[in-house]
Amino acid sequence: MAHRIVVIGAGFGGLSAVLGLKGQGCEITLIDQRNHHLFQPLLYQVATTVLATSDIAWPVRALMRKRKDVTTLLARVVGIDRGQKRVTLNDGSQIPYDTLIVATGARHAYFGKDHWESTAPGLKTLEDATTIRRRLLLAFEEAEASEDPETRAALMTFAVIGAGPTGVELAGMIAELAHRTLPGEFRRIDTTRARILLIEAGPRILPSFSEPLTDYAAGALTRRGVELRTGTPVTDCSEEGVTIGTDFVPARTVIWAAGVQASPAGIWLGAETDRAGRAMVSAQLTLPDDPAVFVLGDTAHVESEGRMVPGVAPAAKQQGDYAARVIRARLSGKEPPAPFRYRDMGNLATVGRNAAVIEFGRYRLRGRLAWWFWGIAHIYFLIGARSRLLVSISWLWTFLWGQSSARLITQRDPWRRD
Amino acid sequence: MAHRIVVIGAGFGGLSAVLGLKGQGCEITLIDQRNHHLFQPLLYQVATTVLATSDIAWPVRALMRKRKDVTTLLARVVGIDRGQKRVTLNDGSQIPYDTLIVATGARHAYFGKDHWESTAPGLKTLEDATTIRRRLLLAFEEAEASEDPETRAALMTFAVIGAGPTGVELAGMIAELAHRTLPGEFRRIDTTRARILLIEAGPRILPSFSEPLTDYAAGALTRRGVELRTGTPVTDCSEEGVTIGTDFVPARTVIWAAGVQASPAGIWLGAETDRAGRAMVSAQLTLPDDPAVFVLGDTAHVESEGRMVPGVAPAAKQQGDYAARVIRARLSGKEPPAPFRYRDMGNLATVGRNAAVIEFGRYRLRGRLAWWFWGIAHIYFLIGARSRLLVSISWLWTFLWGQSSARLITQRDPWRRD
Repeated sequence: MAHRIVVIGAGFGGLSAVLGLKGQGCEITLIDQRNHHLFQPLLYQVATTVLATSDIAWPVRALMRKRKDVTTLLARVVGIDRGQKRVTLNDGSQIPYDTLIVATGARHAYFGKDHWESTAPGLKTLEDATTIRRRLLLAFEEAEASEDPETRAALMTFAVIGAGPTGVELAGMIAELAHRTLPGEFRRIDTTRARILLIEAGPRILPSFSEPLTDYAAGALTRRGVELRTGTPVTDCSEEGVTIGTDFVPARTVIWAAGVQASPAGIWLGAETDRAGRAMVSAQLTLPDDPAVFVLGDTAHVESEGRMVPGVAPAAKQQGDYAARVIRARLSGKEPPAPFRYRDMGNLATVGRNAAVIEFGRYRLRGRLAWWFWGIAHIYFLIGARSRLLVSISWLWTFLWGQSSARLITQRDPWRRD
Repeated sequence: MAHRIVVIGAGFGGLSAVLGLKGQGCEITLIDQRNHHLFQPLLYQVATTVLATSDIAWPVRALMRKRKDVTTLLARVVGIDRGQKRVTLNDGSQIPYDTLIVATGARHAYFGKDHWESTAPGLKTLEDATTIRRRLLLAFEEAEASEDPETRAALMTFAVIGAGPTGVELAGMIAELAHRTLPGEFRRIDTTRARILLIEAGPRILPSFSEPLTDYAAGALTRRGVELRTGTPVTDCSEEGVTIGTDFVPARTVIWAAGVQASPAGIWLGAETDRAGRAMVSAQLTLPDDPAVFVLGDTAHVESEGRMVPGVAPAAKQQGDYAARVIRARLSGKEPPAPFRYRDMGNLATVGRNAAVIEFGRYRLRGRLAWWFWGIAHIYFLIGARSRLLVSISWLWTFLWGQSSARLITQRDPWRRD
């Protein structure tokens, strides 16, 4: 009987594991609760109206079309029984496995302030992105309709909490939207007077980058009209605004980019987890007491050369690839590969048009060249020639004329906020 | 003081009226309850996963950017006071007018069976299209997950009610999806065995076309795997299926393309309406007793040379243009133009890849050439070079490889049907 492998999660980790298992004669079941693989690094561009949802998401089934050894299931996992070696789905059915790969990613974490979520949505799924897009566009619409100067000011204030790459990219793109795309379209408000706050509890933005690049990014953001508020945490968040330390700022649109929490896979597995809920794994990326269960990507706490591997797409891909290599070695009775070692592919973040920062070991790049490099690299990593063409065209238009293509408010009641 | 014109509805009628009033020094307010103008003739391609929502929808504000005489409002009209000459919006504010143009379109009509709507959604808005897209894709997903042959058969049966152009185009595209796009992606079901029913109470499909073209379209649909059920009306519609006459067919996905009802503008106006709720208008497209109020497009019952003008995009455009000419004549004190006369631009419908029908007076065209003509004409009528490029690329991919780009199920709970 063929070796049965169940992969939970069709993100970067899960997909690269499946790719690495091609031609091994295994019986693979790939489970995801969405029907699409999502290119999360560009999700902020959907949220800020530059890209369409379908530009950065592909049906998992279509990606697996030629892999007759893979069965794709649209389902939600509700439990894992390691004793019986089976996964339970939301419809009650159970999928047995010989090897299990858990790569279910992460959600945003509110550090015990879960009630902030409805006010300050995070950005992890396509639905998150269209929710944020709708709120951004509706804020300008409501400001245009409002007669009260204070309400209008609160509507024209946008607060992004957390200044890692996602927070920086969101703030930069909201500034582009307000300063380049929307001017001239409203009759009562001046969108260039929108306030965009980027709030960071730590001392500086982009803490994973070196200080010179942080300084450059801070300058580039400031020139684009983003107000940086570093060194003080957000202490409250409500429909009316955010409180930074003790300073209340009226802001009707708040976006959360401050932290993530692993998916509950650690709990399903009954595994030891770190503070962020990531399962602790061995040097072979399996549970220490259960070599049949791999945990990858944002769901796992992986160490490489004494340092924790960051929760980024290249890390998840490398781990998926590594897990496949371990399984292939086991199936062929060969020696297991050397412990997982993370190859740091560098850090990239865009700040806005013609401005990005790149750090690769000792090499640093910033400004226009970094921005073009960033764009070309991301086009390259998209799946399929069509997505590359469509994204290139959308970027060209935005670059040349500031016109973004996906400025749609879509929902039955256009005035509802969520 | 400038002449104040309020236009309700940014569809084909409203927009062409606004375009025709350029440079007249009027103070125009353009009100729509959506933030986008929608190219409805291609909406069925969003519902069937070929096009992205943003390919066929453009922000009204962006279209009006250079028209400083136009103020765009995202709002819902809740009433019109013809005595006081003002329009009341959902937030309670009132917009005074000297001339009012009502072009609010139509919704689907269920002929007194309004409870069918939740089972059999119609196709008028982007949200309708993504709802239908989600149901189509979920039906295949559920069929793949189902163990019961009867449930699976009901899930693989798709019923389109109404065989006008929209119904024919939907049925043809669902057949393409099942026969060209999806095969190979599922492991338990064979999508080419999906049943697609096109149900029409009248004796033939595409009743607005001549019989030879109807016969051609019927043959082309049948060859593509669509079952035609003409001559018997649907008598019931439920979660379980449709009843055609007395014949119950289990079908979990039902789409309504059988009839439309004008928006309630006729009621707001206190105007005389026809059976479908369209306001009766004079030869100048105004209410007979109120020359300050124009009613256009699907909201109006317009006659031209003794025949009712059909509810199609070119008719709405011509009426918007005509209303603008009447207003220009009034403002400059000139003679009013001759009564509105509809120029029939012909009838077009696609049946599937390489198959379309075109009728223009005595000229008839069908098959591959008609299909290419149809495609080029629709690309031409899209707004902006970017949309034309993006739609061309998506069509090219679908044409060459059968791969549609927007096969996304997006909503918080992927398993909810609406």
